[in-house]
This record gives sequence, structure tokens and C-alpha cells, in this order.
Amino acid sequence: MNVERLFEAPVAAVATAPGAGGVCVVRVSGAGALELGDRLTPESALKPSAREGGTFFHASVIHPVTRLPVDDAVVLVYRAPHSYTGEDTLELQGHGGSVSARRLLEAVLAAGAKPAAPGEFTRRAFLNGRMDLTQAEAVCDLIMAKTDRAAQAARVQLDGTLGQSVGAAYDALLEICAEVERLLDFDDGELPTSFIARTAGRLSDVITGMKRLVATWHEGRLLREGALVVISGLPNAGKSSLLNALLGHPRAIVHEQPGTTRDVIEEPYALNGVPLRLVDTAGLRECRDAVEREGVDRARGLIARADINMHVVDTSLAAGADESLAELSSLPDRKTLIVFSKADLQRTAPPLLPAGLAAVSVSAKSGEGMAELKSTLAGLLDLNDAGDSRAAVSQRHAAELGEAISQARAAAATLESAAPDLAVAASHLRVAAEALGRVTGRVYTDDLLDAVFSRFCVGK
Amino acid sequence: MNVERLFEAPVAAVATAPGAGGVCVVRVSGAGALELGDRLTPESALKPSAREGGTFFHASVIHPVTRLPVDDAVVLVYRAPHSYTGEDTLELQGHGGSVSARRLLEAVLAAGAKPAAPGEFTRRAFLNGRMDLTQAEAVCDLIMAKTDRAAQAARVQLDGTLGQSVGAAYDALLEICAEVERLLDFDDGELPTSFIARTAGRLSDVITGMKRLVATWHEGRLLREGALVVISGLPNAGKSSLLNALLGHPRAIVHEQPGTTRDVIEEPYALNGVPLRLVDTAGLRECRDAVEREGVDRARGLIARADINMHVVDTSLAAGADESLAELSSLPDRKTLIVFSKADLQRTAPPLLPAGLAAVSVSAKSGEGMAELKSTLAGLLDLNDAGDSRAAVSQRHAAELGEAISQARAAAATLESAAPDLAVAASHLRVAAEALGRVTGRVYTDDLLDAVFSRFCVGK
Repeated sequence: MNVERLFEAPVAAVATAPGAGGVCVVRVSGAGALELGDRLTPESALKPSAREGGTFFHASVIHPVTRLPVDDAVVLVYRAPHSYTGEDTLELQGHGGSVSARRLLEAVLAAGAKPAAPGEFTRRAFLNGRMDLTQAEAVCDLIMAKTDRAAQAARVQLDGTLGQSVGAAYDALLEICAEVERLLDFDDGELPTSFIARTAGRLSDVITGMKRLVATWHEGRLLREGALVVISGLPNAGKSSLLNALLGHPRAIVHEQPGTTRDVIEEPYALNGVPLRLVDTAGLRECRDAVEREGVDRARGLIARADINMHVVDTSLAAGADESLAELSSLPDRKTLIVFSKADLQRTAPPLLPAGLAAVSVSAKSGEGMAELKSTLAGLLDLNDAGDSRAAVSQRHAAELGEAISQARAAAATLESAAPDLAVAASHLRVAAEALGRVTGRVYTDDLLDAVFSRFCVGK
Repeated sequence: MNVERLFEAPVAAVATAPGAGGVCVVRVSGAGALELGDRLTPESALKPSAREGGTFFHASVIHPVTRLPVDDAVVLVYRAPHSYTGEDTLELQGHGGSVSARRLLEAVLAAGAKPAAPGEFTRRAFLNGRMDLTQAEAVCDLIMAKTDRAAQAARVQLDGTLGQSVGAAYDALLEICAEVERLLDFDDGELPTSFIARTAGRLSDVITGMKRLVATWHEGRLLREGALVVISGLPNAGKSSLLNALLGHPRAIVHEQPGTTRDVIEEPYALNGVPLRLVDTAGLRECRDAVEREGVDRARGLIARADINMHVVDTSLAAGADESLAELSSLPDRKTLIVFSKADLQRTAPPLLPAGLAAVSVSAKSGEGMAELKSTLAGLLDLNDAGDSRAAVSQRHAAELGEAISQARAAAATLESAAPDLAVAASHLRVAAEALGRVTGRVYTDDLLDAVFSRFCVGK
């Protein structure tokens, strides 16, 4: 633990979600946080700075400048290192509501705290050795989790599972590197084949382990960001009805008049515990109406970024189906799911689809085909039925792991070559280990921390 | 204090606002709340039920049925009567985020707590004598406050100022009533004139005090509910531009094509510390388009309910102005503010307005006239410039005070009549006192409490 860090100036933020709620929590952490509390609770018999850690009390919070009462609060006293950040920390639990929380924070800032940057409490916790970087990131993932499965994956990472796996690989790479360097000092003759075979074997094990972690990235991305599922099609194909049927409530205005939906409508949805962003779009057609044309342009932009494009085709209209599939061929070559809508109506023969395209017939009205639609969607997104409780790496982790794998492979190739250059191999191994060090935070720069903690909300 | 109440079964709820935040708080209150905590923290060295009130500790919260870890939490122990509700209370502060908070609450419910009804913690606080009914209501007002001025008014009420004023009037009425009743038992001859004069004087003082409280209702209503300010006018009059200019950012799509706005757009706005609900509407015109017609119908409905109808007239179009004012005459006879828009464009002579209508010329583009618009609006809404820090009564208070005033007046009239009927006067005084008792909660029924606390959010 870096003891210097315990002397950072106090920062403060509202730690609870904004909006109406019963209570809010304002957190102040840093050297002097408890003395700052003394200035906020002048009427309290025993000052916060004179109290034991792990105790709380009721107090009237007084604005230190205006001297006006701000709120009645419950005041929690944490003494370093027994706090989230590892620093002296004061928490004020006041009445909820956005104005109330802001007023309490204003009083704390007036007493001398600086506003906390996004993730600053967790950054301090990391710097004070309370958690590694994967755990710090898991805190953010847990807060942002939109499904139980995403929360569970974040919890596993918060427990340190991922950090330990990566840490073990880091140790192994540094150990191999040290051996290679020892050989470099000690012997410039021919390398013993036993050493090369043993080292190659160990490297291969480490690489296999790293690849196993990288393979969790697809799941990690879906759990963190959700999958973007766009509902497209000609005007009046039944896109909004499909959205409403999936959501189970009438979110979008459905009207027989084509072109009813103009603004893009996005709704969260969970499929097998994975968060989806379901987006209903304006019908794809040439149009003279400027507002509607803007809607169509936005729809095309979304389709280009989608994980899945659910293209809705109304087969009750013979002409419509053909026109719609012509439209489809102009769409980017992406994962596409054709949804034949209005299956309850009498329909023409379904049109011939391009080879390999998945298709489902549904009726938003009767519910027919909806279960099949969901399972086909899950298949296309490659979602397991049940989330297993393992950590799933983030894009940042995957990139660093990828770098480590390629450097470790280069080291192995060098060692196994006809004339191995030990210095080059050691350098590859060191770069590989550093990449892993950046995953857990054993190696870090301010830029790396800035990038990690900028994702955070203020107050954590 | 009703000691019975301390033995109510424990109820639980998430006490923080929903959504992403650093921490959440789940509160459990009632008899057995601490023992319930024991089941949630089996790994903790010292059980919550064995800890002192006013202390907190870190614990791994385990689901009592699945035995799986749910979250790491800070656990606060409150012992009756030193808690918000006056009951034994446990608070679990866990990681923020909606999924995280829900999982924590599920574990608490699985341990035996019942879900708390809206306002149930505060209802228990009232029933246990921790606060009077006006203070309980102020808790809800403070949470819901949308401006500093609204929060300040709620705080004053929370301090008990309103409750004390009403309580003093209640005591005075009961005292007068007791004197009248004493006279009734004791003397059925002629009433001493000195008694009548003294009583009439006291009653008149009480009535004056109550009227002063009722007079704060206008402000109380605006602070609690906000004023509904509707922006109406012909298509393309510049309604959305005016909304955007007031908000200072482009909330509504502005387009030269008439009929761009279809959905009703509502935005919060603060004027002199009073929350307004600014509503942009579809242009008022006969239209063939079904979706747009729906928008126009909604606009007319809103105008009928508005506190202020800001009717926008584009004077750069001579014909438009006349048509618009014709439209205006078909609007309900309400507070109306005519806004001549596009003051930066060359315009025709402003049309003749019906007498007494307020009018302002503005340019959303240049900002010309916007300050005058705001001050005219504040004048029409009868808003003081600066909020003074006094409580402002709610509709419920005003209704009860109104009843008390009319009963007190009836008592005074009876006493001052040629042949005073003391029994009738006493009865009027008793009914008046009861109305005031319902304000503070000295007199209450379950129905009254249901009505008061149904306004609350869950978790307070």
C-alpha cells in the first residue's frame, strides 16, 4: 500500500443515484475528511473527528458559510484504512431527491472538499491497494449491470477471480523471462534442448490460459454493452407491433397509416439474461417528407452499427415482400434475421430468401412464432441459455491479453528457432508481462487510470 | 408514543433512488429487523443483533435461501427508538445500480421482511410519535422538490413550523370550546357580554391566523406541483423555437415544415425558484393527417388544464396573426399570454388584441424580449421574486383550514346572535378543531393516512 496516498486532499460527491428516493448519500474521502465534518455539524455534542470509526450519529448539517441548516443527516465515520478508499471517510445520509442531495453536497464543498472526478473514490481505493484494477472495473460493471447475469459476472470479477488468473500468468511470464535472462548472463554457448523444451511447454500453457480468457470477450461485451438489435423494414411492415409484442406493452404508436414512427424508439430488453437494445426505426422508403426522410437516414445508420438487423417483411402483401428484399440487398452484409410478420393474416407464398439467411414467421397479434423468434435471436447472438458464473473480460482486457499472447508466441518462436536470440526472447516476454500487468494494474500510468475511471459515474 | 407500534413486523425497501449510482441503501425496519440481519450476514464475527445501535460494519451479504453471496455491504444498526421509524432498523449499503439494489432487496425479503408500502417507513415514524403529519408530508415534499425554493419550503415545514402554528390554533379552539361548554353546564341564563366579546375576539384572532396560512396555498401548490405552461399557436408560429430558447438548448426538432411537432413535449423549467412544466404542442389547425390530428386534440386538452397558455403568434405573416387570434377566441377563458414571435423579422402591424390580454414580442433567435417574457410570466403566475423561507400549505391543508375557518365563523355567528345556542357553538368549535387535528395528525383515521402516504415513493 502506498502510504503517501492517504494524505490526498478530501473529495466529495453524491454517491447515490440521482432522482427521487428516500435517502441520498454524500461521501467525503481524504485527509481531513473528519475535521471537515466537524465544520458541518457544529451543534453535535461529540465532533466527528473525535468519534470512533464504525460509528454513526444523527446531526443537523449546517452550511459552514451561510450558517443555515441544510438537512438532518445520519453521519457515518470511517477511519483509514477501514473504508472503501482506504482513507478517512465521512458519509452523510440525508433526505433523498435531487435538490436535497445537491444542497448537501454544496455544504460539503463549502466546508473545503473538492468535487470528486468520475470514479475518483474507486481510483483512490486502487491506489491505496484496496483492490486491483480488474476489481475496480468490476465495481463499475456491477453498477451499470442491466441484467442479473451481467451483475453476476461483475460480482465474480469483483471477487478477484479474473485478477488472480491474469496475475498468475503475469508471474509465470516474469519467471520464464528471469530464467531466460539468467541463461543470457551465464552462458553464451548452445542452449540445452531440455531448457528449450521445458520453456516452450510452460509458455504454451500460459498462452492457452490467456486464450481461454480472451474467449470470454464476446460474452463480456454483450453483458456490458448489450446487443444492438434494430427492427427495420418497409413502412407498415409491422415493426412497431413487433417491438410492442416483444416488450409486452404498447411502447410505440401503431397506426395503419404508413410512416407513423419518425423518431427512433429504443427500449431495453433482456434475452437469456443478456441486455438488448431494441430499436424500432422509421420504415425504409423513398420519401418526400423531410422529417420522415431524416428518420429513414437514422434507420440506415443504425442498421450499419447493429449486432442483429431484424428485417420485418409483411407477406400479406405480395408486392411488398419483393420490394422489401430488394431493400435488404442494399443493407450491409451483417447478421440479419428475416421476420415474416402478420402470420395471422392470409399470406402469399413466402419469397425466396438469399441462402443462409435465418427467417421466422410471427404474429404480433396472436403471439404465434414469438418464442421461436427469441430462440433464433439468441442463437444468432451466440448466447448460452444460462449464464455460468465466470468473469467475462472487457474489450480493454481482451486487447491487452491479445498483445500478451502475440508477444509470448514471438518469444516461443525465437526460442525454438535454429539460432535463438535470448535477449530478443526476454524482451518479448517482458512486453507480454507488462500487457498483463496493465490488466491487473500491477503496471499502470496516469493515462491508463484516466481511461479506466472515465467510464465511471461520479460518486463511486 | 404508541408503544404497541414498536412490535410491527419488519418491512423492507430500497431507500435510494433507482438507477446507476455509487451506492444503494436497503432499509429494514420493525420488530426482529436486527435478527433478520443475522441471517443475512452469517459470516460476520459479531451478529447485528448483538451490536450496539449507532455502529456499522462491513459484511458479505449471503442470500438466506440460495446461500450464494449477494453483495459486500456496509451494515448500519439502529436500535429503537433511535431510528427514523422509532423501530429497530437495519440498513444495508451495497453497490449501486438497479440490478444490484434489487438483488440485495430480494435477499432481505427472503430473510423474512415484507415489502414496504409507499411511505410506510414515514407512516411508522408518525405512528410512533417521531413526527407530526405535516412533518411527514414535508419529507415527501422535500424528496420531490424540483427547485431550491421548493426544498426550502419543505425544510421549514419539516422543522415543524406549520405543525406548531396549526397546533396552537387547535389548542385555542379546544380551549374556547371547553369554556363554552363550561358555561353551558353552569349557567343557562343570559350570557355575560364580557364573555361574548372576549370569545369573539379570540376566535377572530384564530381565524386571522388560519387565513394567513391558507393564503400560502397558491405558492404551496406551485412549489409542489409546478405550474403547467402550455405553448400553443398555429403550425409554424415558432412554438418549438420558443421552448428551445427558454430551455437554452435544442430540445424540440425545429423545422420550417409546418406540423413538425406531433408528440407533446414536456420539459421542466424553473422561474424564480418555482418549477414550471413547459409543454410544446402540435400546431392548432384542421388537418387530415390522423397522427397530427391526435396531436392537435392533445394540445387542446392541455390548454384546458393549463395555468398559463402562452399563445404564439407569428406577426411576420399578416394572415396568420388574424387566424391565430380567431383560434384564441375558441380557447377557454384562462390566463393567456400572447407571444408575438420572430421579432427579428420584419413584421406587419400587431393585430388588435382583446382587452386585458398580456402580450410580449420576442425573438427566439436574437433573445430579444425573452427577459420581458419571463417577468410577465412570473407576474401572471403571481410569483414573488425571492422565496421567503416560510412553509406553504398543501391542498389538503388548505381544505382542512377552510373547513376550520367556516366552522369557527359559524361558532362566532352563533355566539353573537340575539339568542346564542351554546351547544351549537361548541359543536362548531369541536368540528373546527378536528379539521385542524387532521392537519397535524392529532386526529387521524386509516383512510386519512392511506391518502397522505400513497403520495410517497417506496423506500421512505
